[in-house]
Amino acid sequence: LLASAAASASDELLKMQDNADEWVMPTGNYANHRYSELDQINRDNVGDLNVAWTFSTGVLRGHEGGPLIIGDVMYVHTPFPNIVYALDLNDSGRIIWKYEPKQDPDTIPVMCCDTVNRGVAYGDGKIILHQADTTVVALNAETGAVEWKVANGDPKVGETGTSAPMVVKDKVMIGISGGEFGVRGSMTAYNLADGSRAWRAYSMGPDSDILVDPEKTTHLGEPVGKDSGMNTWEGDQWKIGGGTTWGWYAYDPELDLIYYGTGNPSTWNPSQRPGDNRWSMAIFARNPDTGMAKWVYQMTPHDEWDFDGVNEMILSDQEVGGEMRKLLVHFDRNGFGYSMDRETGQLLIAEKFDPVVNWATHVDLKTGRPQVVSKYSTAQNGEDVNTTGICPAALGTKDQQPAAFSPKSGLHYVPTNHVCMDYEPFRVSYTAGQPYVGATLSMYPPEGSDHMGNFIAWDATKGEIVWSNKEKFSVWSGALATAGDVVFYGTLEGFLKAVDAKTGEELYKFKTPSGIIGNVTTYVHGGKQYIAVLSGVGGWAGIGLAAGLTDPNAGLGAVGGYAALSDYTALGGQLTVFAVD
Amino acid sequence: LLASAAASASDELLKMQDNADEWVMPTGNYANHRYSELDQINRDNVGDLNVAWTFSTGVLRGHEGGPLIIGDVMYVHTPFPNIVYALDLNDSGRIIWKYEPKQDPDTIPVMCCDTVNRGVAYGDGKIILHQADTTVVALNAETGAVEWKVANGDPKVGETGTSAPMVVKDKVMIGISGGEFGVRGSMTAYNLADGSRAWRAYSMGPDSDILVDPEKTTHLGEPVGKDSGMNTWEGDQWKIGGGTTWGWYAYDPELDLIYYGTGNPSTWNPSQRPGDNRWSMAIFARNPDTGMAKWVYQMTPHDEWDFDGVNEMILSDQEVGGEMRKLLVHFDRNGFGYSMDRETGQLLIAEKFDPVVNWATHVDLKTGRPQVVSKYSTAQNGEDVNTTGICPAALGTKDQQPAAFSPKSGLHYVPTNHVCMDYEPFRVSYTAGQPYVGATLSMYPPEGSDHMGNFIAWDATKGEIVWSNKEKFSVWSGALATAGDVVFYGTLEGFLKAVDAKTGEELYKFKTPSGIIGNVTTYVHGGKQYIAVLSGVGGWAGIGLAAGLTDPNAGLGAVGGYAALSDYTALGGQLTVFAVD
Ligand SMILES: O=C(O)c1cc(C(=O)O)c2c(n1)C(=O)C(=O)c1cc(C(=O)O)[nH]c1-2
Ligand SMILES: O=C(O)c1cc(C(=O)O)c2c(n1)C(=O)C(=O)c1cc(C(=O)O)[nH]c1-2
Repeated sequence: LLASAAASASDELLKMQDNADEWVMPTGNYANHRYSELDQINRDNVGDLNVAWTFSTGVLRGHEGGPLIIGDVMYVHTPFPNIVYALDLNDSGRIIWKYEPKQDPDTIPVMCCDTVNRGVAYGDGKIILHQADTTVVALNAETGAVEWKVANGDPKVGETGTSAPMVVKDKVMIGISGGEFGVRGSMTAYNLADGSRAWRAYSMGPDSDILVDPEKTTHLGEPVGKDSGMNTWEGDQWKIGGGTTWGWYAYDPELDLIYYGTGNPSTWNPSQRPGDNRWSMAIFARNPDTGMAKWVYQMTPHDEWDFDGVNEMILSDQEVGGEMRKLLVHFDRNGFGYSMDRETGQLLIAEKFDPVVNWATHVDLKTGRPQVVSKYSTAQNGEDVNTTGICPAALGTKDQQPAAFSPKSGLHYVPTNHVCMDYEPFRVSYTAGQPYVGATLSMYPPEGSDHMGNFIAWDATKGEIVWSNKEKFSVWSGALATAGDVVFYGTLEGFLKAVDAKTGEELYKFKTPSGIIGNVTTYVHGGKQYIAVLSGVGGWAGIGLAAGLTDPNAGLGAVGGYAALSDYTALGGQLTVFAVD
Repeated sequence: LLASAAASASDELLKMQDNADEWVMPTGNYANHRYSELDQINRDNVGDLNVAWTFSTGVLRGHEGGPLIIGDVMYVHTPFPNIVYALDLNDSGRIIWKYEPKQDPDTIPVMCCDTVNRGVAYGDGKIILHQADTTVVALNAETGAVEWKVANGDPKVGETGTSAPMVVKDKVMIGISGGEFGVRGSMTAYNLADGSRAWRAYSMGPDSDILVDPEKTTHLGEPVGKDSGMNTWEGDQWKIGGGTTWGWYAYDPELDLIYYGTGNPSTWNPSQRPGDNRWSMAIFARNPDTGMAKWVYQMTPHDEWDFDGVNEMILSDQEVGGEMRKLLVHFDRNGFGYSMDRETGQLLIAEKFDPVVNWATHVDLKTGRPQVVSKYSTAQNGEDVNTTGICPAALGTKDQQPAAFSPKSGLHYVPTNHVCMDYEPFRVSYTAGQPYVGATLSMYPPEGSDHMGNFIAWDATKGEIVWSNKEKFSVWSGALATAGDVVFYGTLEGFLKAVDAKTGEELYKFKTPSGIIGNVTTYVHGGKQYIAVLSGVGGWAGIGLAAGLTDPNAGLGAVGGYAALSDYTALGGQLTVFAVD
């Protein structure tokens, strides 16, 4: 009985994701659209938006992700210590239940980029929480009671959890963090019914570990061949090879494939790991039942800049070059926006989504390889040499902040970073549980720019920016597109903004309590449309404020670039819910 | 030059307090009215109130007090670590400067009732901060630079600071906390120019310490006589006698008198301190230049219930019994609302402001003494006996949450507690810096009541409740009355409420991020009226949430009574600013 109930979790979720009144998964839907059919709030009236109610989470530091709304209940999660609240929408957000795990605070120092958490998942009556200490917990959605618990990793060796789980069919997909601690990344599927492990696919290692079939799994149409996850590494370096999986996941129920990206190879000093370092910096398409990879594509072979490939995969059906395509659109840290055929893994388009990107001239669509500009190659320049003026900075033209896609406008709305860096690699030795970084960074706006972010509309069928709005700081918040022809996002200073989906014209802004790095959501309750967003400055961009760091090179190089943030906002942790009266 | 500038601080403040656009002292004005002449927001349109902007303070736990608004700048303070922000009202609350003192966290455990702070004062271009560790700091209001600093007490012996300073003439009045640690209370005046000490008046001790003139200082019209601060104590108990001064202060510039109350005698076990324990539980009227007392009145001789006398003194001119009077109205913890002649200290009226008050039948207006009901006398019942059903509880029918007075309606608007208790005294010995409490308490709603608070309108010329609104929890927030015939207050669940000044009818409510124990303020910027309030649950009533306590008897007995609060709100620290569009 349990098993059959669980088997239908995807079916239930597929129905629920089509009910625009609810917001049933962190990504909005399996396709990562972050789009809502709701149009009560629209271009004409969004200027009349008002705050309907608010909720303090009781936790400070970076609040990523956003709430789930299922029926009359809103589920709100927090950064470490990863509290989950079930709030009663029928009673002014009264707390129906609260779950607060006990976690060893020693987990905090092994979290690379603030104590963030990107949200909880729902499936088959359970709320799935992915704790900082990697514990995965299934809570009864009605009562908050623990149904099962499993440890996905071990913070003692630098393994942590920040990513939002995704429930697919009868399983929960869970990634892992720790690329700055030499963790070997993996994606693990747990059975939703009881938390038992179904499969685990590492990002590098023997074929049996990475779940690729040397003959059938393809890279740009070619079989990957035997030992693809080892033969581009020197010696045992793959064992501490990074390629963590802390970003966003997607699922195509028709193709029955899950998609996700892998992070940087460890260490950040490229000279210590010659080779392409497969499959770090790659997109995997896998069968959710077995974990077996159908295809894989590596965006940044032999990374020299920390351009993790974990950003979301947005699945859309659009015409490219006159042909309808099942697209996978991916805005990579490396500054290229990729449009791929998600069935085959074929690369269709790869274009810069910020013109200042300078580390590569272009991506060769045949080989898939970026053409690196020598001057910006930290590997070529070598250890203990400071390579300057690389664009983008390590946090990429886009980091974890997810873009939205409007099937109505056909455009992608992308929160971006407009930041460059100096990068000086140095030799580092590995000790389990200790930082394994090997580079000193500093970050700053591109030459001649006085702003550090853009919010852009992107045409993925052409690989072109349609419009671009400047933002003082990187836009570290996730976007929401709606059928009301309005796109929402938050800023690091704390503004929630609404812009015209067609033109980018700013239609509304409101100063929330703290910087926004959460993702905007929308739902209907009692017949009325609401917009909800978490405030709470932090994440990598806000790490200076969040962790109280002031040395410009601290926080993996981010502190200096964002120092001015403290003139605009202070730590927080609040949900703000808006409506038009 | 400096001295003459400082001498005029009161003159400047008197002008500024009459400018309804600003909010220049925590109490609204010297008379503690918390009343504003502004009427843009009024009975007719308050229902259209909306949130204009918000600000997270970056600190959790109880946020008491409220911001100052001076010119285009808003000054916001926080609980420990007592950050002060200057926010630019012309630029969406951008942070002009931030001052964060370094304080020993060992101060926290010697704060009896959460890490609260009731606000900063302004005078002569300086912002005066009273830190938890008792340091008094004068900051340049424009730059935040420290102009001077002085230690008023020593946390190592249990002395802490929570009260808002008051600038009077060329001096700053500073009280002290620590009644639960055997601190001997005092009021100290520091010179605004340089922080040097002008005078200190203890609450008990030799006449030279308490600054009373045995012949000229009166109690209900009679000279207090020699050694009044010692001869109602046994032995040296007065040296650890309590009578701290952590509440609100008032000033009458015409009479040139400051007013404030003193707290409970230490310990809470009355058997260890026979006698009236003067001048704990008393109101002092003192000359601000010399500190010399003109009159004093003790509300609760020989306290047996922890009914600190520190609540605010509201100065109004009203007719009582056909005669115009310079009134001092005081809603005491003990449940009696006192109307006194503030010139002479004569007691005019003393009536219960919650009918459930049962520990005394009435107050004898001649002797000033409450007529104690034996059954509720914890002293008569003796040590190690649990006296049950005492109303009010130790936190009184009202605690620090200040009432407002509308000269327009002639009514006082009083946030109250509707809570009773069991009280079991036990023998305790004194160790400097250690809790010196000596009683176990539990708190609960009065029999037959399902609510723990009332928000009432009070006619101080008659000693009568005019209307009374039930609230689920104690109303721990300070009230604001306005010429718009609207009264504002916050609730522990987090609602900001606006009610009709005449009838109490609820006109507006909004769920702010966290429970409200701050005091509502109003101001005008750019021609528009705003309402501002701090959220952040805590204080004594919210100590369970604030300090993470769950034992019902913990938090000096408050945890059990308010346990249900966690169903409504979580910790916070946010400013919410409202306006009518
Ligand atoms: O390599 C990793 O395992 C890892 C983990 C995380 C994370 O879990 O938050 C981030 C990163 N890397 C990273 O490179 C990065 O830019 C980043 C930004 C953020 C954030 O939440 O703002 N997390 C992370
Ligand atoms: O005796 C003291 O020195 C002292 C200090 C304080 C304080 O400083 O907050 C409180 C009390 N007593 C007290 O009795 C009390 O009810 C109380 C409530 C609160 C609060 O802020 O909620 N503080 C205090």
